[in-house]
Amino acid sequence: MDLERSPLALPFPEMPSIAGVVPRVARAGYKDWGRCDLTYVELAEGTAVAGVFTRNVCCSSEVELGREQVRAGRAHALVVNAGNSNAFTGYRGREAVEAIMTQVAEHLGCPQTEVFVSSTGVIGVPLPKDKARAGIAAALEADACSWEEAAATIGTTDTFPKGAIARAVIGDTTVTLSAIIKGSGMIAPDMATMLGYVFTDAAVEPAFLQRLLSEANERTFSCITVDSDTSTSDTVLAFATGKAGNAPLASFDDPGADAFAAALHDVCRQLAHLVVRDGEGARKFIEVAVTGAVSDESARKVGLAVANSPLVKTAIAGEDANWGRVVMAVGKAGEPADRDRLSIGFGGHWTARDGLPLADYDEAPVAEHLRGSEIAIAVDLGLGDGRATVWTCDLTHDYIAINADYRS
Amino acid sequence: MDLERSPLALPFPEMPSIAGVVPRVARAGYKDWGRCDLTYVELAEGTAVAGVFTRNVCCSSEVELGREQVRAGRAHALVVNAGNSNAFTGYRGREAVEAIMTQVAEHLGCPQTEVFVSSTGVIGVPLPKDKARAGIAAALEADACSWEEAAATIGTTDTFPKGAIARAVIGDTTVTLSAIIKGSGMIAPDMATMLGYVFTDAAVEPAFLQRLLSEANERTFSCITVDSDTSTSDTVLAFATGKAGNAPLASFDDPGADAFAAALHDVCRQLAHLVVRDGEGARKFIEVAVTGAVSDESARKVGLAVANSPLVKTAIAGEDANWGRVVMAVGKAGEPADRDRLSIGFGGHWTARDGLPLADYDEAPVAEHLRGSEIAIAVDLGLGDGRATVWTCDLTHDYIAINADYRS
Repeated sequence: MDLERSPLALPFPEMPSIAGVVPRVARAGYKDWGRCDLTYVELAEGTAVAGVFTRNVCCSSEVELGREQVRAGRAHALVVNAGNSNAFTGYRGREAVEAIMTQVAEHLGCPQTEVFVSSTGVIGVPLPKDKARAGIAAALEADACSWEEAAATIGTTDTFPKGAIARAVIGDTTVTLSAIIKGSGMIAPDMATMLGYVFTDAAVEPAFLQRLLSEANERTFSCITVDSDTSTSDTVLAFATGKAGNAPLASFDDPGADAFAAALHDVCRQLAHLVVRDGEGARKFIEVAVTGAVSDESARKVGLAVANSPLVKTAIAGEDANWGRVVMAVGKAGEPADRDRLSIGFGGHWTARDGLPLADYDEAPVAEHLRGSEIAIAVDLGLGDGRATVWTCDLTHDYIAINADYRS
Repeated sequence: MDLERSPLALPFPEMPSIAGVVPRVARAGYKDWGRCDLTYVELAEGTAVAGVFTRNVCCSSEVELGREQVRAGRAHALVVNAGNSNAFTGYRGREAVEAIMTQVAEHLGCPQTEVFVSSTGVIGVPLPKDKARAGIAAALEADACSWEEAAATIGTTDTFPKGAIARAVIGDTTVTLSAIIKGSGMIAPDMATMLGYVFTDAAVEPAFLQRLLSEANERTFSCITVDSDTSTSDTVLAFATGKAGNAPLASFDDPGADAFAAALHDVCRQLAHLVVRDGEGARKFIEVAVTGAVSDESARKVGLAVANSPLVKTAIAGEDANWGRVVMAVGKAGEPADRDRLSIGFGGHWTARDGLPLADYDEAPVAEHLRGSEIAIAVDLGLGDGRATVWTCDLTHDYIAINADYRS
C-alpha cells in the first residue's frame, strides 16, 4: 500500500551534526522493500543515556532490555531495525536482540549493556538473526549519513521523515539537540510504532538527564494520541555525548540547567507534534486545551478523553462544531467535572459557557476555523487551576482504509 | 441521511402484551420528520421500578431525576421523547421535564415522582415544552399500540426496531418479560443514545428488582461497546406490574427468584446484543471471550480494551486475523497480564499460545471464520479463574460516513 504524504507534513529541518554522534544506515532486508531498514548510530565513549518506554505489559524484549540498560546510564551505540518489531516472539526474539548487542559490543570493545536496540514492524515474527548480522556488518563499514536519511530509515508507514532541533546556552557554551522520531499511529502493531531519539553534545549526568526526559515526556509524548492504542514497543531515548565541553549538568542548581531543560522539552514537543501530523489518515491537527481542572493530571485525562473520542474526532473531520460531543467526552473521563460550570470553545470562540449554549452564539467564525487544518478546542471546567494541552488528529476514511483495507 | 437497515439486524420478535402495561405513541414533532416521536406507557398502579443510568457526569436532567425517582421504587407512567436529548440545557431543560411529569401526574392522579421521562437526540437544545405538552395530550387519547410501534418510536438513527422476550415460572405462575431498546452507537450525542425498558407482569419488590437489574446490567449492557463513547443519557428501566399474581419476589430465598433473575438476564443480554447489531456502520458482530484473568472484573476490562481498540476493530473489518493487535490491546488494558502466558484465538482456533505464535498454525479455517458476520475472539491470560464476555462490532467506513460526513 503506497501512502500519500500527509497533508499536515512539515519540511525536514536543517539539522546540524552532533559531536560524538555518527549515524549510518544499511539494508538488512527485513522486508522485501529495496530500501535501507537498519540504522546504526555510534556514540562517543561515556555518552549519558536516559529513556522512557511503553507501559504496555506485552512489551518487546527490546523494551525490557532497554529499561534495564538505561539504569546504568551509559551508551556507546544505538541500533534501530525497521520492518519487524520482534514483539511477542518469546525467547527467540530475546536471543536475536542479544546477538545484535554482542556483535556491536565486540566491534566497539564496550560492555554489551551500552548497545541499545529498538525494533518496529510486524509482531510475532522473531527478528531474523542472519539478516541482522549482515545488516550490522554493512552498517559498520558504511559512510556516515545525514539526519534525514537516518529519520527515513527508522520509519515504516511514516509518510515523511521527522526531525527537530533546539539549542541552549550553558555557561558560555552553546549546546545543540538534534532529534528524530518515527510513528504514524500511536501504534499499528504490524506496521508502526513510535520510536524517538534525541542526541545532544551537552554534558549531562545520566540521572539528571533521565529526570528531564521523564518530565518532558509527561507534557509531550504522554499528551498525544492518534487512535488510543498503545504500542508494545514505544521508546524515546536521549543521548548526551558531552562533547560540547560545558560543565556537566547534574541538577537544576547548575547554571544553564533550566535552559537545557527547556530545549529538551522543545524538541520533545516538536517530535510529538510531528507524529500527530503523520497520524494515520490525519487531515487536521487538533489541540485540546483544558483549563479549570482540579489538577494538571486531571486536566490531562479530560483532554485525552476528548482527544480519544471517535465521535469528537469524526466531528472535526466533518468540520462540525459539535460541542455536544465534547461535553459527552468530558463527562466520561472519570474526572471531576460540573455540567453547570463547563465551557466549550473552538478557535478562540466560546460556543457554550457555564453549562448552557451561548445565547448570542455566532457560528460563522467557528465554521471558518473548522475549515482550516489546525483546530483548537478549549475546555474550561471552572473548578480549579489545573491545566493541560493535548494533541491529536481527526478520524477519517483514510484511517479505516489504512487499517482495514490493507492486509498484512 | 437515510441509513440502510443493518446487515446484522434480526426480525422483531412476537411480543406478548403485559398485563398492566399499555403503550401508546404520538407525534410531538421534535424534529421535522413526519413520524411518531413520543412514546407514552401507562403502568398499573403500584408497579415496581428499578433503573441503571449512565455514569457520564455531564448527564441530562432526565437521568438526574430518574436516579432520584427509582429510589422510591414505584412507577405509574413512562414518557420517551425522540429527537431531542435535552442534555446540557441547564435549568430550562429541567423545567421541561418537570412540566411533563406534572401533566401526566395530574392526568393519572399520582405523585409526580411516579412519572419517568427519557429523552434522546440532539444535545444543547431545551426540549420545547409546547410540543411536549401537545404530544402528551395526543398520546393520552391515542389507541394502544404494538410493541414494535413503540420500539420504532423510541428510535432515532436506529436502523431496525429492537425487542426481546423471556418467561419464567414462579411457583405455579408463568411470568413474562417484554423489553424494547434503542441505540446505534453507545452514543452519538446529536443523534443517538441507549434507552432500554423491560416490562413484566411479575410481582417483584422494588429493592430486589433493583438488585437483579444491577447484576444483569454488569454482565450485559456494561459488556457492550460500539465506539467507547459513553452517552450523557443512557438509561435502562425495569417495570414490574405484579399483574401475573405470583407471590411477590423479595429475595433469592423466594421460590422462582432464580428463574426470574435468569429471564431478566436473558432479555437484557438480547437487548444488549441488538444494540451492537445496530452499531453505527457495523458489518460484523464480535464476541470477545476472556478467560484466565485474575478476576471477573479484570477479565471484563481486558475484554473491553480489545473491543474498544480501533486497530482490532478495523482488522476484523478487513477480515485480517491480526492477533498482534489483540496482544497490544491486552497489554494496554492496565490489568495483570503476562506476555509469556497469553494465548489468542479466532473462531475456536488458537493462533498463539503461551506467548508464541503457533508453530503449526493453519490460517485457512481462521480466514474462513473471519469472512463470516459473527466473529469470536478468545483471549486466555493463563493467570487465574476470572472470565468475562464482551460484545462489539467492527469499525468500518460507514462509521466515519455516519459521524463525519453527516452534518447535524
